Amino acid sequence: MSPGRRVSPDRGPRTVTLLTDFGTVDGYAAAMVGVITADAPLARIDHASHDIPPGDLFTAALTLDRYAFFYPEQTVHLIVVDPGVGTDRRAIACRVDGRFFVAPDNGVLTRILQRGGEWSIIELEAAAVAPGRPLSSTFHGRDLFAPAAARLARGEPLESLGAPVADPVVLSLPRPERTPSGIVGEVIQVDRYGNLITNVPGSWVDAGESRVMVEDRSAGPLHPTYGGVEPGALLTVVGSLGLLEVSVRDGSAADRLGAGRGARVRITGNAAGDR
Amino acid sequence: MSPGRRVSPDRGPRTVTLLTDFGTVDGYAAAMVGVITADAPLARIDHASHDIPPGDLFTAALTLDRYAFFYPEQTVHLIVVDPGVGTDRRAIACRVDGRFFVAPDNGVLTRILQRGGEWSIIELEAAAVAPGRPLSSTFHGRDLFAPAAARLARGEPLESLGAPVADPVVLSLPRPERTPSGIVGEVIQVDRYGNLITNVPGSWVDAGESRVMVEDRSAGPLHPTYGGVEPGALLTVVGSLGLLEVSVRDGSAADRLGAGRGARVRITGNAAGDR
Amino acid sequence: MSPGRRVSPDRGPRTVTLLTDFGTVDGYAAAMVGVITADAPLARIDHASHDIPPGDLFTAALTLDRYAFFYPEQTVHLIVVDPGVGTDRRAIACRVDGRFFVAPDNGVLTRILQRGGEWSIIELEAAAVAPGRPLSSTFHGRDLFAPAAARLARGEPLESLGAPVADPVVLSLPRPERTPSGIVGEVIQVDRYGNLITNVPGSWVDAGESRVMVEDRSAGPLHPTYGGVEPGALLTVVGSLGLLEVSVRDGSAADRLGAGRGARVRITGNAAGDR
Repeated sequence: MSPGRRVSPDRGPRTVTLLTDFGTVDGYAAAMVGVITADAPLARIDHASHDIPPGDLFTAALTLDRYAFFYPEQTVHLIVVDPGVGTDRRAIACRVDGRFFVAPDNGVLTRILQRGGEWSIIELEAAAVAPGRPLSSTFHGRDLFAPAAARLARGEPLESLGAPVADPVVLSLPRPERTPSGIVGEVIQVDRYGNLITNVPGSWVDAGESRVMVEDRSAGPLHPTYGGVEPGALLTVVGSLGLLEVSVRDGSAADRLGAGRGARVRITGNAAGDR
Repeated sequence: MSPGRRVSPDRGPRTVTLLTDFGTVDGYAAAMVGVITADAPLARIDHASHDIPPGDLFTAALTLDRYAFFYPEQTVHLIVVDPGVGTDRRAIACRVDGRFFVAPDNGVLTRILQRGGEWSIIELEAAAVAPGRPLSSTFHGRDLFAPAAARLARGEPLESLGAPVADPVVLSLPRPERTPSGIVGEVIQVDRYGNLITNVPGSWVDAGESRVMVEDRSAGPLHPTYGGVEPGALLTVVGSLGLLEVSVRDGSAADRLGAGRGARVRITGNAAGDR
Repeated sequence: MSPGRRVSPDRGPRTVTLLTDFGTVDGYAAAMVGVITADAPLARIDHASHDIPPGDLFTAALTLDRYAFFYPEQTVHLIVVDPGVGTDRRAIACRVDGRFFVAPDNGVLTRILQRGGEWSIIELEAAAVAPGRPLSSTFHGRDLFAPAAARLARGEPLESLGAPVADPVVLSLPRPERTPSGIVGEVIQVDRYGNLITNVPGSWVDAGESRVMVEDRSAGPLHPTYGGVEPGALLTVVGSLGLLEVSVRDGSAADRLGAGRGARVRITGNAAGDR
């Protein structure tokens, strides 16, 4: 192990974040934290969320993308949304732009791997990660993923946990398209406020004459901020992910438009030039 | 910066607490924690709650009051319930009785400012708080409030983050009144157990002959403890905020009385002397 | 206090975990964390769960058992599910197999005490735990249990907090039985995925010809892993607690079988030998 991999006291201990679909009431998430605390006593632990809908890889992939790279380098992001536990799906760990990710190989890292940064991936081998410990058939979060995250938090090299993987599973995420009559995209997430988050980059459109439709209903003007319209009015903003979001100021666009994930979004007029 | 402001290793690192209406599933709260972790690597972070009902300033103000001053001095309390993001509402930070508070200037700090302690307030200036970083129009929690909290956690002086403010927004909270026929107050919160928390201080009443009514229904005797009545019975106690609370032992007073926030409370007979 | 009780810097600070039925929105849990942070500035704090159904001691006891002993020795587990606050129930702290537990004496520690390890228990005395501080009648979590946990996290001896107790309250948990026609047990928990967790140890049965019934419906074959059946199919596995769990691969067994806590489970054929 190179000295440079060691945790530097000046930068504080490494952080391990957890993203799961476990909820908290059953104690599964706490068991994982217990293992990490025992294996890496100096690591900091942060609960990103345990409220991902059970098995919803798509939501988990978007959520992860919202926070992963705001954490400093060396952070270990642990993601256990694992409907395939007990099947032959692989368990992986990877390093992308200086952060580590530990997860089942089921596509939950799709957006992380597709952002264009440098990455290397290995398949977790139980004998290397948790030698001499039993591996349950139903809870790899506790028995494999958490010990792997703890090892990375302690500064052990990624390559010590298993052999390289070249073909991680990626989800087929819907992509927006430019057509002769405008841009066609879709709603990829509805957040807690009822905002309809689309897959259309804000950089594809110009404010002003652009017209946004969700299915066959108008989604209001494109404005830089909520303050541009009255409370209760529909508008479309460029949200914090850099994507177009259809919103109601002080209300829910999902309720107003009766729309959810997968709803078709069309933008006509005055679209910006290049991608 | 005076040396006295520096974090003392003997007292441990400063803690940053988070109170939001973000939920956890969308990753907004985790993005804020990522920013704080990157900017203030030694700070401790504690999630107070992300479950405030969206935009509910009144609930957030009461919740904050339940925990803010149990934390030690130098703690940084970050509150992002921000229905006005993208409007011209100010962003502020203040120091009250040795703790720091970072929040939108929308009244969420009302109870903190009205407790009678010393306070100073500044308006957060993006150029001072996060120079050279983009400020999204929809997510000041990540782009402005979190960096400000991190600076305070690192021991930077409040005054370095912006110019003084003298007129913070305060909510008009309902106040109890003494009338010739007794005390009139109201239910200001229903907690998870269905307890009806009123705005009437326990010091205003004497146990014994006081009679408590919620709207037109009796709220049981005033007792010092739940143990004073049988399981399933109504009673009124002085709760942990020092306010009268109407409860059902091992049950929900909200369900029993069909009452919620805003319900009128009247106390007659034997009220105590001075405020 | 013996030097050996002191926190060793090499092992990191002691961790305090919290398990409550408080939810987070009211700020009760945050108040407890504030007290611990003030009293034990170097302790790490982890939220196991605040989502236990109000007053549900049985669920809390099972949840605690899922994580308590995965944490390292010296960890302080704080459990506040306390329907009896304000009655004459005792408050206790105990040491079991090197971990500490602070809780009301209402049976919530039943599974911890029945696991067969060494234990010692004391009754918390407010005058020893939080001298000179007021004790509210409704919130011992903040005023008694949190200060006690902080003292243990700082390395103070258990015995300094109160006098020994020999007869802690234990819940009467349902036990599985062997009968001439097979094993009879019951569902003791339904987890977030709809898995029916039974009280029948996996070691009591052999895979193969065992037949599992929940009430009068077949619960599928006994398989080592979810991968042994098609998506959507019923199966019974040995889960992460070592108990039989009835599951639907990628689905909910609770929904499929219309069964919940207390449902009768029968296993016939080919049961394994000894307990």
